Amino acid sequence: MESSIDNLHLNKQNSLIAQAGDLAQLVGPRGKNFIIRLAHAEKLHTHRGILDHDGLIGKPWGCQVYSHLNRSFMLLQPSLADILNDIRRSTQIMYPKDIGFILVTMGIGPGQNVLEAGTGSGAFTAALAYAVGKEGHVTTYEMRPEVQKLAQKNLAGIGLSDRVTFKLRNIEDGFDEQGIDALFLDLPNPYDYTSQVRAALKPGGFFGSILPTTNQVQRLLVALTRDNFAFLEVCDLMMRYYQVDPDRFRPVDRMVAHTGYLIFARPILMEVKPFEDEIAKISSDELSSKS
Amino acid sequence: MESSIDNLHLNKQNSLIAQAGDLAQLVGPRGKNFIIRLAHAEKLHTHRGILDHDGLIGKPWGCQVYSHLNRSFMLLQPSLADILNDIRRSTQIMYPKDIGFILVTMGIGPGQNVLEAGTGSGAFTAALAYAVGKEGHVTTYEMRPEVQKLAQKNLAGIGLSDRVTFKLRNIEDGFDEQGIDALFLDLPNPYDYTSQVRAALKPGGFFGSILPTTNQVQRLLVALTRDNFAFLEVCDLMMRYYQVDPDRFRPVDRMVAHTGYLIFARPILMEVKPFEDEIAKISSDELSSKS
Amino acid sequence: MESSIDNLHLNKQNSLIAQAGDLAQLVGPRGKNFIIRLAHAEKLHTHRGILDHDGLIGKPWGCQVYSHLNRSFMLLQPSLADILNDIRRSTQIMYPKDIGFILVTMGIGPGQNVLEAGTGSGAFTAALAYAVGKEGHVTTYEMRPEVQKLAQKNLAGIGLSDRVTFKLRNIEDGFDEQGIDALFLDLPNPYDYTSQVRAALKPGGFFGSILPTTNQVQRLLVALTRDNFAFLEVCDLMMRYYQVDPDRFRPVDRMVAHTGYLIFARPILMEVKPFEDEIAKISSDELSSKS
Amino acid sequence: MESSIDNLHLNKQNSLIAQAGDLAQLVGPRGKNFIIRLAHAEKLHTHRGILDHDGLIGKPWGCQVYSHLNRSFMLLQPSLADILNDIRRSTQIMYPKDIGFILVTMGIGPGQNVLEAGTGSGAFTAALAYAVGKEGHVTTYEMRPEVQKLAQKNLAGIGLSDRVTFKLRNIEDGFDEQGIDALFLDLPNPYDYTSQVRAALKPGGFFGSILPTTNQVQRLLVALTRDNFAFLEVCDLMMRYYQVDPDRFRPVDRMVAHTGYLIFARPILMEVKPFEDEIAKISSDELSSKS
Repeated sequence: MESSIDNLHLNKQNSLIAQAGDLAQLVGPRGKNFIIRLAHAEKLHTHRGILDHDGLIGKPWGCQVYSHLNRSFMLLQPSLADILNDIRRSTQIMYPKDIGFILVTMGIGPGQNVLEAGTGSGAFTAALAYAVGKEGHVTTYEMRPEVQKLAQKNLAGIGLSDRVTFKLRNIEDGFDEQGIDALFLDLPNPYDYTSQVRAALKPGGFFGSILPTTNQVQRLLVALTRDNFAFLEVCDLMMRYYQVDPDRFRPVDRMVAHTGYLIFARPILMEVKPFEDEIAKISSDELSSKS
Repeated sequence: MESSIDNLHLNKQNSLIAQAGDLAQLVGPRGKNFIIRLAHAEKLHTHRGILDHDGLIGKPWGCQVYSHLNRSFMLLQPSLADILNDIRRSTQIMYPKDIGFILVTMGIGPGQNVLEAGTGSGAFTAALAYAVGKEGHVTTYEMRPEVQKLAQKNLAGIGLSDRVTFKLRNIEDGFDEQGIDALFLDLPNPYDYTSQVRAALKPGGFFGSILPTTNQVQRLLVALTRDNFAFLEVCDLMMRYYQVDPDRFRPVDRMVAHTGYLIFARPILMEVKPFEDEIAKISSDELSSKS
Repeated sequence: MESSIDNLHLNKQNSLIAQAGDLAQLVGPRGKNFIIRLAHAEKLHTHRGILDHDGLIGKPWGCQVYSHLNRSFMLLQPSLADILNDIRRSTQIMYPKDIGFILVTMGIGPGQNVLEAGTGSGAFTAALAYAVGKEGHVTTYEMRPEVQKLAQKNLAGIGLSDRVTFKLRNIEDGFDEQGIDALFLDLPNPYDYTSQVRAALKPGGFFGSILPTTNQVQRLLVALTRDNFAFLEVCDLMMRYYQVDPDRFRPVDRMVAHTGYLIFARPILMEVKPFEDEIAKISSDELSSKS
Repeated sequence: MESSIDNLHLNKQNSLIAQAGDLAQLVGPRGKNFIIRLAHAEKLHTHRGILDHDGLIGKPWGCQVYSHLNRSFMLLQPSLADILNDIRRSTQIMYPKDIGFILVTMGIGPGQNVLEAGTGSGAFTAALAYAVGKEGHVTTYEMRPEVQKLAQKNLAGIGLSDRVTFKLRNIEDGFDEQGIDALFLDLPNPYDYTSQVRAALKPGGFFGSILPTTNQVQRLLVALTRDNFAFLEVCDLMMRYYQVDPDRFRPVDRMVAHTGYLIFARPILMEVKPFEDEIAKISSDELSSKS
């Protein structure tokens, strides 16, 4: 109820013991896992048997627990990445590798005031809400009522609702907010809204977006340049996992080839444009030396 | 002095105007930039002329300012990534792409209580301190006094010192702390300290490390397995920047090929080990589907 | 019998028309394909119906043909890559991206005299035999009789047998040949045979190998250095395919993460070693500038 | 004079000894190297001293030789990749990783009859001429007389001129040839010539191109689809070199991020188009499983 981010990792007084109200992750062999909020008298049904929540409450984090079929699970506290992966199963959302880089690049941390559109399933909204902490705030726009409802349910489920304002609105008409620190567009056509973004962001604030195709990136670059954004950057991240066998250390056989192109820019105040070309088209050497 | 993270981005009442005590970033053409803390009567000397701090204080963020040679700079608030890049110039530190993924994967956010060794130049310490917010805390161990001093200076410079406890100590003798949420080793020989790590982390807590060579990764995997860590993961991230010209959209010519292998694991409580092999060696398909 | 490489692409007089004795590729929807040698009175059975070879002989290459169920196929001449992919279905063999780079790096072309061990399914043997042409020759060693037989069958099937000498032999006892241009080891333990390789290769000749794990690469580097090989190079190749939709141009979702590390070296004659360190450890800048 | 490909590697009777007329590579420390054709009374001037050709002729390949300053060099026979790298120093040409994959994918080998436009510096022309052998042939079109002359000089220099027909012509007017096995366009605007390509290639033949930007790729995909090409494929190859130190095995620090997108397609004969969509848009799974 007063569910809050504290339940994620931070019941300081009891952080070693699972309690009613805590988020818990139950992990079986081969990485199969379930994320639940512990509640008295509830049950978790799995293909390897049933687990009573009351049998989990009071157990130390990191221990093994058993289903009624005597099959074992690890009882753990989920990380943000675990939660995001759990949400991702049902919808097409951002990957931890992209989320982490976006947060660091856009300077999103405790106390920040950030905007997002569209809300979607709320997974990135959750990442933003987690990162800004209790003193920060996230406002997120979405046009489709049923999608917004799902996001609200997802955020409530992990106790982050009170840091988020949900707005049911087409951003074509602009954002209500101004002087915002950071604004992220997770929409197929961000290039249609760059003037609205500019009006909401404070000068020098951070704009970001993620897009699957080069065609969309090209259109967004045109719009950002037209609307006086500078410090344009486009990149993509490839992650390769490795087998964890120390005697046969090697990459896994297959990997995700593409999640999306990340685009960043910052609106600037400028009467004249003394070194615009130089800023906008930083040479490949400089760009690549930053990665 | 009461310098705090608020100065990074969050003087809410005045966030549109540069003030004495704020961190500021001055950006010239071709990405050349300077990060300073604004103070009355101070001057910034650049190869393109001198800027008086008093001429910057009171200006809106995102505007253009001029040196005594009438050369222009953009006046901006730096992001965490900007600050990290600034620190990196003098030392070999972690890249934003790696830092972002580490924070998300290890669940490091507001209110967390994290450990680090070694401190080094303090750049990753700064990222941790920024992410845990005012209510979290970072404790960082370092053996070399002069290195610790540099880190303390770097953290003070960005107003994050009060969230960090610096310890001058060889971790061979163990950490003072217990029940820690997350612990990161940025040392060449983390495999020598896995039992110390285990003693400090709470069961199910998050361990992470970054290593340049496969030899080191192999040794660490052996040590982690021996000391009953599970959920072992190894990956590396490659980032490719793109030219921002929408009519000639293409990757830049050169990129960073390698920053380091990232290793993650979680200590677990286990009398018997029912599906250890299955956990430790998650199939490549599952691993790669997570990236 | 007089089956020969000419049948691959080069019946100059009739190259536009499919003839008995030619290799043909029949391609159905979604890339499903069959590679056969055309012969009177033969039939090809597919899940989309039966095709009489006699109905294919005399047809122009590149046309459509129909099964007895009236389902269409494209009639094409297969490329080397098509043939290699066909062989790969049953065994774990090298990928075209690696084969192409190996051939170019090791200077393998028409007229060359090359050695290989082990033969395996004969897929890379086929690539070598194709590349050296009628005037070149390939000698390939294999210890397992049944594996050698499969390779002989595969090479005969594409008409390249007369360029290949098959030897059933453990290379621990050395190669019969000397003064060889290029030698490739496709074995799990090439580090056990570097002195045998040295005895067979002419000074300055090309040695290559492919290995899945870093542990194997490390052992091979030790052995090559010990046995006076120079110009050591290790690399791996990552290939990313793209969706071919011009309006939604983007990488495909998933890719192969790893096929193997490629290792190259050249044996040299040296009494003294004036700049050995410099050769063996070419700086990363130089290496990366070559890729 | 009758310089020929045999000089590359194949003076079988004397292949162990450097002879007048042979191509030789002289390698100094740190990979610095010179490729020359040995001729009596000639001298090679380097920054590490002068080498008389007559002092090299008669020496065994793979030995060390000394300049008049007593500085050592390795005397080697160059591979195709060495020669290509040598040509590349002066012009922007294709990389071995791309060339190898193009040759294998387009089935280019001994006896093939291939077309190219434009000729450029002749580096890729050389790779084609080497691969098709004595019985194959390459015809290459170029509009700029001075560029063609450079290519002719480069091909003559490595003894491959007699396998190449140089045409000084704008391919807008079409190719003279028909029924060609494989055709490669190395031009900035290949999309303007797809109907000319179609007229020259035999049905089912192989078309290939390399382009630096996604904009060009998008236009080419439109043109290929319009002109009834099928089996469209686009990919790019990333190569990562590794440090060759077995005790500190790791990737080098920097790498080439982009050389070009590779595009392949095959013209087909079709009255109706029963499964065109399925062929043209092979699912990402199938594509990626081929890499």
